[in-house]
Amino acid sequence: MKIVIIGAEAAGMSAAAKARRTDRSAEIVVLEQSDIVSFGACGLPYFVGGYFDDASFMAERSADQFVQSGIDLRVRHRVEKVDANNKTLHVRNLENSDVYVEDYDRLMIATGASAIRPPIGNLELGNVFFLKTMADGYGLKEAVLDDRVQNVVVVGAGYIGLEVVEAMKERGKRVRLIELSDRVVKESFDPEISELIADEIREQGIELHLQESVISLQGDNKVTGLVTDKGEYKADLVIVCTGVLPNTQFLKDTGINMLPNGALVIDDQARTSLPDIYAAGDCATVYHRIRQEQVFIPLATTANKLGRMLGENLTGAEKVFPGTLGSAAVKALDIEAGRTGISEADAKTAGLDYKTVVINDKSHTNYYPGQSDLRVKLIYERDSNKILGGQLVGKRGAVLRVDALAAAIHSGMTTEELGMLDLCYAPPFARTWDPLNVAGNVAK
Amino acid sequence: MKIVIIGAEAAGMSAAAKARRTDRSAEIVVLEQSDIVSFGACGLPYFVGGYFDDASFMAERSADQFVQSGIDLRVRHRVEKVDANNKTLHVRNLENSDVYVEDYDRLMIATGASAIRPPIGNLELGNVFFLKTMADGYGLKEAVLDDRVQNVVVVGAGYIGLEVVEAMKERGKRVRLIELSDRVVKESFDPEISELIADEIREQGIELHLQESVISLQGDNKVTGLVTDKGEYKADLVIVCTGVLPNTQFLKDTGINMLPNGALVIDDQARTSLPDIYAAGDCATVYHRIRQEQVFIPLATTANKLGRMLGENLTGAEKVFPGTLGSAAVKALDIEAGRTGISEADAKTAGLDYKTVVINDKSHTNYYPGQSDLRVKLIYERDSNKILGGQLVGKRGAVLRVDALAAAIHSGMTTEELGMLDLCYAPPFARTWDPLNVAGNVAK
Repeated sequence: MKIVIIGAEAAGMSAAAKARRTDRSAEIVVLEQSDIVSFGACGLPYFVGGYFDDASFMAERSADQFVQSGIDLRVRHRVEKVDANNKTLHVRNLENSDVYVEDYDRLMIATGASAIRPPIGNLELGNVFFLKTMADGYGLKEAVLDDRVQNVVVVGAGYIGLEVVEAMKERGKRVRLIELSDRVVKESFDPEISELIADEIREQGIELHLQESVISLQGDNKVTGLVTDKGEYKADLVIVCTGVLPNTQFLKDTGINMLPNGALVIDDQARTSLPDIYAAGDCATVYHRIRQEQVFIPLATTANKLGRMLGENLTGAEKVFPGTLGSAAVKALDIEAGRTGISEADAKTAGLDYKTVVINDKSHTNYYPGQSDLRVKLIYERDSNKILGGQLVGKRGAVLRVDALAAAIHSGMTTEELGMLDLCYAPPFARTWDPLNVAGNVAK
Repeated sequence: MKIVIIGAEAAGMSAAAKARRTDRSAEIVVLEQSDIVSFGACGLPYFVGGYFDDASFMAERSADQFVQSGIDLRVRHRVEKVDANNKTLHVRNLENSDVYVEDYDRLMIATGASAIRPPIGNLELGNVFFLKTMADGYGLKEAVLDDRVQNVVVVGAGYIGLEVVEAMKERGKRVRLIELSDRVVKESFDPEISELIADEIREQGIELHLQESVISLQGDNKVTGLVTDKGEYKADLVIVCTGVLPNTQFLKDTGINMLPNGALVIDDQARTSLPDIYAAGDCATVYHRIRQEQVFIPLATTANKLGRMLGENLTGAEKVFPGTLGSAAVKALDIEAGRTGISEADAKTAGLDYKTVVINDKSHTNYYPGQSDLRVKLIYERDSNKILGGQLVGKRGAVLRVDALAAAIHSGMTTEELGMLDLCYAPPFARTWDPLNVAGNVAK
């Protein structure tokens, strides 16, 4: 059995490691076009924010560990063509530009995603950064250390955009955040949650612009400003955080089934539409347990889990992925928010017969220091009261409570059950009725 | 319909409030022997520790709110006898000592529990305190403010004992903690968790004595020391936290079904063994969802939930309690611990065919400030891998993760499902594989 994996980030390396443990005799080849292995981009905002300097902290495991376990890891090797009929790959060794043919019994595509380059003029100017690769991180970190860089503009108010805002604030910069849509983290959160995050951002002195479109950057060599459909702003540094697109262009002529954005459509065993070709991670879809369809929600958690499962399937198992809930969290300045299951927007799009409840509660007892506000939103089926989604926001205790909702939603719990669920209480952690209980009980 | 409720703490007042909302026409009488209403003793350690001074913070609602909602609340009224055949009560008005007869259609016993007075000599000395009532709290708080009180001995290392240790440390006292058994919080936690709590207590300079029995207190008026089976110690103040016993002595001659400790045995609708007499809270048992039996686990959360449900049943509903998981948490100095479901000791006692797993992991990524150790223990069925119980301990993020386990255990989740459960991740909150995922995956 010869297993070839294209891509050595979360999904690819999780699969390689698990396949190695599952089948000691299989030949496992990993082809990675960069020279970085097992890298998690999630740490980049904190790296550039100066929370830490050792970039190796962002790698789960070192290349050496993989090689020592008997994985044939080839960095700076780019796959340029997949021949699914003959089960071969055209691989370019980037060290010497030679191209050779590699065959496989089973192939895993784990090429991840790249930062979207939005249609903004002059993106090639100096001091304009994306934040997806290690190189992006090094470049931005160096630029930030320049004291002449005072005015920073972040374009895009998704998870990474918000984290970068915090990082730039940490670096003492004047920060402006420009978002095309009418809300921050709009794709993940409903308005009741977005608005509290936006409030926090504004209260901490960030200039937040919503429903504003960046047209062009200005400057000769380095960026000096930018023009939007509403105004012009000074900018010594611009960071573009407008999402990602799957790295699947090299598969376009294979006829493999993709979503319009290029995400490889997989099934519940992570098989693509082509025989013996599997995929996982940011280059592929993932089965959504509540939406009951394949969706594009690129998250490190899913990449790891699906990758690990695929490590077994590549060696002959037929494991079925239980599905994502789209669980995700973000901390921005002093506020944290988490979400799981479907949002109200999702429910609307799907034409579900649903209800929602929003409650404002407290993190814990009023007599223990640090009590803060918590807002909980639940989305649930009208007739059965089955919980479909949940979101929390607050200064403390929001995100980890979403994990309890994730377990509840995974299991099909109703709002009534949540209302009576035996959650932990002690004065520093909750009130006798946890906010999740209250939300469950208020839902009618 | 005339509903009489004996006791105005968590269970009684939850029931009264819910019954009032459910049935506007019912006559609802609440008889409370003290003059305090809706009081939660959980705040007492923080009250005496000086975290707050307004005792009203420990009450969920004021007496006025109940009266205004049309509840006939009679404080300083003690029920001395219940005649279940004639459905009458003998009530003593403590203001004038008059005894009168009150009839009822449905009766709820919610008399709570009292601190156990262990067989220790000279417990009546000055500066010896229990910590269960508001009066206890006022007395202890005053005593603590005396600067001559330097050496404090806490007897009993259960939840309250640990919280009182923290409070006394906060007050700058020299603290000694003496526990009869071989571990702290032994009734709730398994040794792997207890030992980390004990380590923290010792590291913070508390003298912890295990397997040591206090024989007698010493002193003339005020306590000055104590004698154990292993030594003699100086003590300017002693706080006895050795558990509680149900306040059900006044029912002894009714033939009502009780556990040996006096807890009223109820069914899943909170009915006692006598017709039209219900009970909830610390005076009664509660159905344990995993142990599948009535147990005595006196907790404020359960009292509130069962009380609320009973508020409906008293007015004619037939709601069934979904069961407790014994979920509970404690913070002691800088460590927090939580538990849900059954412990390994419970599993052993019940003769279950179980397995356990213990993992040592981290609260979140190594590159975000404040990373700390987390230990997770799972108890699960050998064949099905169904999770039966879980415990976490650590400096941060332990207790709220137990809530996710509670939802999982409530729903019958297996360790494999937990391993792949879509929990939240962002660098400040978790790693891509949450410690709960890791525990699920390591369990075989």
